[in-house]
Amino acid sequence: MFYPKLDAILLEFLAEDLGSGDISSSALEGLGERRGWLTARKPGVIAGLPFARRIFELAGATTWTSLVTDGDEVEAGKVLAYVDGPGHLLLQGERTALNLLQRLSGIATKTRRMVRIAAAHGHARIADTRKTSPGLRWFEKYAVRIGGGCNHRWGLYDAVLLKDNHIKLAGGIDRAVAAVRETIGLAHKIEVEAESLEQVRQALAAGADIIMLDNMSPEQVAEAVKIVAGQAVTEASGGIDEQNLARYASTGVDYISMGALTHSVSALDIAFDLDEPKQKVGQR
Amino acid sequence: MFYPKLDAILLEFLAEDLGSGDISSSALEGLGERRGWLTARKPGVIAGLPFARRIFELAGATTWTSLVTDGDEVEAGKVLAYVDGPGHLLLQGERTALNLLQRLSGIATKTRRMVRIAAAHGHARIADTRKTSPGLRWFEKYAVRIGGGCNHRWGLYDAVLLKDNHIKLAGGIDRAVAAVRETIGLAHKIEVEAESLEQVRQALAAGADIIMLDNMSPEQVAEAVKIVAGQAVTEASGGIDEQNLARYASTGVDYISMGALTHSVSALDIAFDLDEPKQKVGQR
Amino acid sequence: MFYPKLDAILLEFLAEDLGSGDISSSALEGLGERRGWLTARKPGVIAGLPFARRIFELAGATTWTSLVTDGDEVEAGKVLAYVDGPGHLLLQGERTALNLLQRLSGIATKTRRMVRIAAAHGHARIADTRKTSPGLRWFEKYAVRIGGGCNHRWGLYDAVLLKDNHIKLAGGIDRAVAAVRETIGLAHKIEVEAESLEQVRQALAAGADIIMLDNMSPEQVAEAVKIVAGQAVTEASGGIDEQNLARYASTGVDYISMGALTHSVSALDIAFDLDEPKQKVGQR
Amino acid sequence: MFYPKLDAILLEFLAEDLGSGDISSSALEGLGERRGWLTARKPGVIAGLPFARRIFELAGATTWTSLVTDGDEVEAGKVLAYVDGPGHLLLQGERTALNLLQRLSGIATKTRRMVRIAAAHGHARIADTRKTSPGLRWFEKYAVRIGGGCNHRWGLYDAVLLKDNHIKLAGGIDRAVAAVRETIGLAHKIEVEAESLEQVRQALAAGADIIMLDNMSPEQVAEAVKIVAGQAVTEASGGIDEQNLARYASTGVDYISMGALTHSVSALDIAFDLDEPKQKVGQR
Amino acid sequence: MFYPKLDAILLEFLAEDLGSGDISSSALEGLGERRGWLTARKPGVIAGLPFARRIFELAGATTWTSLVTDGDEVEAGKVLAYVDGPGHLLLQGERTALNLLQRLSGIATKTRRMVRIAAAHGHARIADTRKTSPGLRWFEKYAVRIGGGCNHRWGLYDAVLLKDNHIKLAGGIDRAVAAVRETIGLAHKIEVEAESLEQVRQALAAGADIIMLDNMSPEQVAEAVKIVAGQAVTEASGGIDEQNLARYASTGVDYISMGALTHSVSALDIAFDLDEPKQKVGQR
Amino acid sequence: MFYPKLDAILLEFLAEDLGSGDISSSALEGLGERRGWLTARKPGVIAGLPFARRIFELAGATTWTSLVTDGDEVEAGKVLAYVDGPGHLLLQGERTALNLLQRLSGIATKTRRMVRIAAAHGHARIADTRKTSPGLRWFEKYAVRIGGGCNHRWGLYDAVLLKDNHIKLAGGIDRAVAAVRETIGLAHKIEVEAESLEQVRQALAAGADIIMLDNMSPEQVAEAVKIVAGQAVTEASGGIDEQNLARYASTGVDYISMGALTHSVSALDIAFDLDEPKQKVGQR
Repeated sequence: MFYPKLDAILLEFLAEDLGSGDISSSALEGLGERRGWLTARKPGVIAGLPFARRIFELAGATTWTSLVTDGDEVEAGKVLAYVDGPGHLLLQGERTALNLLQRLSGIATKTRRMVRIAAAHGHARIADTRKTSPGLRWFEKYAVRIGGGCNHRWGLYDAVLLKDNHIKLAGGIDRAVAAVRETIGLAHKIEVEAESLEQVRQALAAGADIIMLDNMSPEQVAEAVKIVAGQAVTEASGGIDEQNLARYASTGVDYISMGALTHSVSALDIAFDLDEPKQKVGQR
Repeated sequence: MFYPKLDAILLEFLAEDLGSGDISSSALEGLGERRGWLTARKPGVIAGLPFARRIFELAGATTWTSLVTDGDEVEAGKVLAYVDGPGHLLLQGERTALNLLQRLSGIATKTRRMVRIAAAHGHARIADTRKTSPGLRWFEKYAVRIGGGCNHRWGLYDAVLLKDNHIKLAGGIDRAVAAVRETIGLAHKIEVEAESLEQVRQALAAGADIIMLDNMSPEQVAEAVKIVAGQAVTEASGGIDEQNLARYASTGVDYISMGALTHSVSALDIAFDLDEPKQKVGQR
Repeated sequence: MFYPKLDAILLEFLAEDLGSGDISSSALEGLGERRGWLTARKPGVIAGLPFARRIFELAGATTWTSLVTDGDEVEAGKVLAYVDGPGHLLLQGERTALNLLQRLSGIATKTRRMVRIAAAHGHARIADTRKTSPGLRWFEKYAVRIGGGCNHRWGLYDAVLLKDNHIKLAGGIDRAVAAVRETIGLAHKIEVEAESLEQVRQALAAGADIIMLDNMSPEQVAEAVKIVAGQAVTEASGGIDEQNLARYASTGVDYISMGALTHSVSALDIAFDLDEPKQKVGQR
Repeated sequence: MFYPKLDAILLEFLAEDLGSGDISSSALEGLGERRGWLTARKPGVIAGLPFARRIFELAGATTWTSLVTDGDEVEAGKVLAYVDGPGHLLLQGERTALNLLQRLSGIATKTRRMVRIAAAHGHARIADTRKTSPGLRWFEKYAVRIGGGCNHRWGLYDAVLLKDNHIKLAGGIDRAVAAVRETIGLAHKIEVEAESLEQVRQALAAGADIIMLDNMSPEQVAEAVKIVAGQAVTEASGGIDEQNLARYASTGVDYISMGALTHSVSALDIAFDLDEPKQKVGQR
Repeated sequence: MFYPKLDAILLEFLAEDLGSGDISSSALEGLGERRGWLTARKPGVIAGLPFARRIFELAGATTWTSLVTDGDEVEAGKVLAYVDGPGHLLLQGERTALNLLQRLSGIATKTRRMVRIAAAHGHARIADTRKTSPGLRWFEKYAVRIGGGCNHRWGLYDAVLLKDNHIKLAGGIDRAVAAVRETIGLAHKIEVEAESLEQVRQALAAGADIIMLDNMSPEQVAEAVKIVAGQAVTEASGGIDEQNLARYASTGVDYISMGALTHSVSALDIAFDLDEPKQKVGQR
Repeated sequence: MFYPKLDAILLEFLAEDLGSGDISSSALEGLGERRGWLTARKPGVIAGLPFARRIFELAGATTWTSLVTDGDEVEAGKVLAYVDGPGHLLLQGERTALNLLQRLSGIATKTRRMVRIAAAHGHARIADTRKTSPGLRWFEKYAVRIGGGCNHRWGLYDAVLLKDNHIKLAGGIDRAVAAVRETIGLAHKIEVEAESLEQVRQALAAGADIIMLDNMSPEQVAEAVKIVAGQAVTEASGGIDEQNLARYASTGVDYISMGALTHSVSALDIAFDLDEPKQKVGQR
């Protein structure tokens, strides 16, 4: 995984927290090397250790030792990693590293839960959306993959998705698809959002590679899947949550995309403690 | 509110979504001016309209009209604003504007709820923390203010907070505070985290401006507030959530800080529709 | 066409030329408004006028008037546009504007020529490649579209292309495709490069969306097209130039991609003259 | 050769190609270390190996071994260098490295050819111009030096060149030079463009350090050189190409500048192959 | 001291000096490793060695050896450090390193002189202001600390200072303070500028944490200190220079801030010499 | 004067001061439009008004009115300009604008004084050096021009200056000049630093365009000027200050360069006052 701007972005994150300098820890310079421990305070799926590591390294840590790997499912109290370096520098990287690690682990944890539900009820794969935190899409989509989900398009540039607004603007699914066909080349897929079975048929007729079944009931989705009959990839989206996911997964749809994977996340609680790992997890 | 890098940051957010160009909407160039409507799909406190507006403007919208103001509490179905401009350009700004607006409104909504609970049980003010999404702290702390909360320090640079790790590193509260006093000037406050009443007394003795009562029970907080007796500002933090907030608010503590205001947020659902506002809100 | 970083990039281009300031024109400040004329010195297809315009505007020009439109085919001597503003500022934008406009027009001109040849011999569309000038891909792929060509993928991120090196690394077409299927989601196409008819069959069997017929003779391409028989999109690539293009276009292949559209370009000669357009074109 | 922003620029080039990540090679992670070979497919002068090396290093390559040096003239089939590292990372640096290396080698190759022609017919040195690809001037002027040419000014900031437009704006060569003399200090040269022998005399009278003989015939250039008689440096420019270069070189002029060295370049074809170097060069 | 953007800033400084490349030293490539010596030509307090070192390292130096430490007071002729590396690269870092080192040492030297005067006449500490060179505040405030001074606020963001203009705008000290109290949280101090004893009393009444005694005579300051009587921190500012500092320091005021520490500085003269340190210091 | 990165740099300066937001003035939003007055508190030459204006505009000021022009010499108490806009926004731009304006005016004032002394004793022009504040060279060299001085080279890239270290590295003036001649093209001048009359002769023999007479006494300079006899431009440098300038100016040397113009500057005191200009200047 090579990302040319990774260091620049992580330094930007550190700069957001450090600003003109850490006036707490800087007063504690020269007090020697310490070891800092990262401990999960709640159970979950870990995502983001390579970024946490790099943040600590950029802040001046000397060595990092991972005890688990991204994607591992851990219990509360599990020590995830430890990092050695000058004490005051570890404290300067701590918050930035945790903010990213906790958020990504929260996403991976939620995704894993959804993937399990889906897998228990059919073959549908869980996909993310573009409903990510501004500036963090690359990281959040990474966390979805770690959780076992798959990535939908990265942005407006790598696949066509003609939604209700596009269709309104163009004056119909056929016109919208025709307009796109004139300008795109060979490399990109065309997906069309359908809000009714009639629109599913229009999208099929227009030759969509993927048909998004938007805000449909599980019954409608099942019906649509039958109509499509393998001539296009199907994706259910809109109003799907942990409660009704099983019913959507049972419809035979190929993909289920959920914006909440990234737009409504609970961070996984992870502690950072100098000298010895957090003992009494969960009593907080 | 003047933020020198605002345009640069919003353009970066747009670039994350647009990449090498929007291959869907670009095919629909030249289809004329449209009006896009922003409608709340769920009730909540709105935050981020000025940023949504600026994102649409940067994407090429011509005029924006707000129907509510940041801080307003709205019902599901409320039209928040509309924006005019070339149809395909509106669609290029849509997702980026919504991602930011929904997240900030989610934060403001949650904050407002906490502020109400606290206000009903004492004088404590709700404060945020540094547990924000990397790169978004400025926006998220803005949303907390809009929700009625107040901002804690912005980062490591604008106030001293000596936490358990600092105290371990320095070898005691007195030593940590003494080290800081040697290096900071006149402009910044010193806060000390206390995990026990004994540490509260030590922090007081060391002359802390603020004492954070960390992970204490409401009873301990009440006891600590009595010990401090107005000689320092008091702040309760750690393990406080919507369920137990009332009990903490009743302790007489000055501030209650909650990381979850920003690290575990549910986006407020807001729709964007061309031509006419979303009619059937909530049925999704 | 909205490109969030366009102004920043054009200012970077201007900064490359202006550095610490124009020591020639700055001495001529205050000599009033002038009109500068852009004239084609050679026939060709114009591409890049919106960027030239924006460069002049950023340098301080007051108004720009286009007399032709991107995509227009012009004769030598044709006045393309004129721009008004303080004389010394026009001269500070001149070279940067011309360097971009001439290069893009060169690309569009070459592309148009190829498109015509292809159209005269079949239905194959001309596509570009990733063999662009570092830092200029967005502009150069725009010029290809203006010339009538279509864009292949924008980079490594928006479509999969498994080339000989990937196949070697994975140990076969089937393995390479299988590995990719595990990690990509629903949004992206998979193209496989085939250097023999045997590989064409393997790519088909692996379910490739597109098959690149690499470095094959026109006869081999025709044979491959028959084998594929519409089950995948076909693309001929490698060693195709103006001389042999007609023969490839006659094979029935869907796309013909040519790196030389962007990696080996002759700039179209365009003059910039204050006060009156270049009179005696071509005698240079 | 130290260039403070080199790494930042090369990372930007990589980011242009990698975007949100390489979805082809990333699927092939963990398949071990490989060796990639760079082989010239056509004869030419190599320029840019240090940049290609640095691009591969930034992408994660472990070692690079050069077999030739920038400036070397090679035959088709010559192995230029090899690079070791994780296979999928080599493939992520490949295209960016080649795009730069091929372009710069194309420039060096063309420059060397021109330098040879000039050297066979007089003492004139071949110089470049500001007609470079936006964003690539530093690299392209490097390639001209590697080819044996010399650099003209880098931009508008490091030398004065009063061209026809400046002279029109100022109202004559004498006025333009006088205006410049008032504002520049001691460090920079003044060059004046002359389009006639009369203007050559005016430029001489004005004390120009260098006189550009613009768009003159070889006979006019020879005449101008006689008039100048060593009182200024002479430069021929405009309409000089491989066909008529010998005749210009015979005039006794000091420098011949050619925009086509950089604005109209054919990339030198260079292959990158994993595991073993390209065997059958030239049959493509 | 960890500053996330340090390398980026130092590279920017180097780029300002190196531009498109050092055309003097580049001609002297390949002449081997040299040692360069930094020698103080005037006595003073040294500040900035870590930055000078980093600048040389970024330019390509191999090793740096410090012979003194930031904060040391040195005599003219003292060798401060030496640096080894390729000769031409040392010369490319020289000027940028010296410009920063000389400026910061000038600031530290002046600060130390003021600190000594103040210490001889009371307990007042010398503080800096926001009157720094644009872009260099972080470095200049570091130099003040090295000189023994303390830092006032870093900018408009980390402490409130209500000056005469704010008070005019709000319509009185009480109103200005009240307005601020509504918006700031718990983390920041409020300072009020008082231009008269009456305003001192108003500031006290408003509950200011710090009162700036602006442009008062030493007698007025002494009177104000009595009025404040320890209820707030006191700071004298405005019109205080080396001549009258002793009299202000005798007033019992807590802090004396001096804009001239950073806005009017004489660089400390420091030489850089290849091969052997500067012998005859001071005869220049 | 067009500088492509000007806005970006000024926004960076504002961001340095504003950080996460102005917590003083932001509390005073909505109090209406005000007028702020810039008044000189000390006599001097004004430089930087266009930048001060732009800073205020970027901060949100609506109109700016200049009452003097850069280069004007003003008395203490002179109102320089006024600026209208929302009161709290004016206060957010104030410090950044003043820091730049005061510094540049300090440089222009000092330069003007030196230029007058030189003009009274000969024809020598006053020139600056590269001894500028890191990041501010473009601004500081502008101020030198406004003061009546002239600019020496801008950096290492626009003219060759072979100093003692280069000569040591190359092994003599002749070798150093010869090495440079091989690599530079036609556009740049070569200056050689001479520390003795013998070196002056060597520099002449080597064909230097400019000879820097380094650290020589006025008598030596006069002697050197005779030796050079118009065959090269002469520049005196090193150890020249306001006290001995007249004696150097009398030597007939062409240029006198002074690092102290920019490295040791006293800011010109300029006030900013809302509502009415500073009345009682000088009594501070």
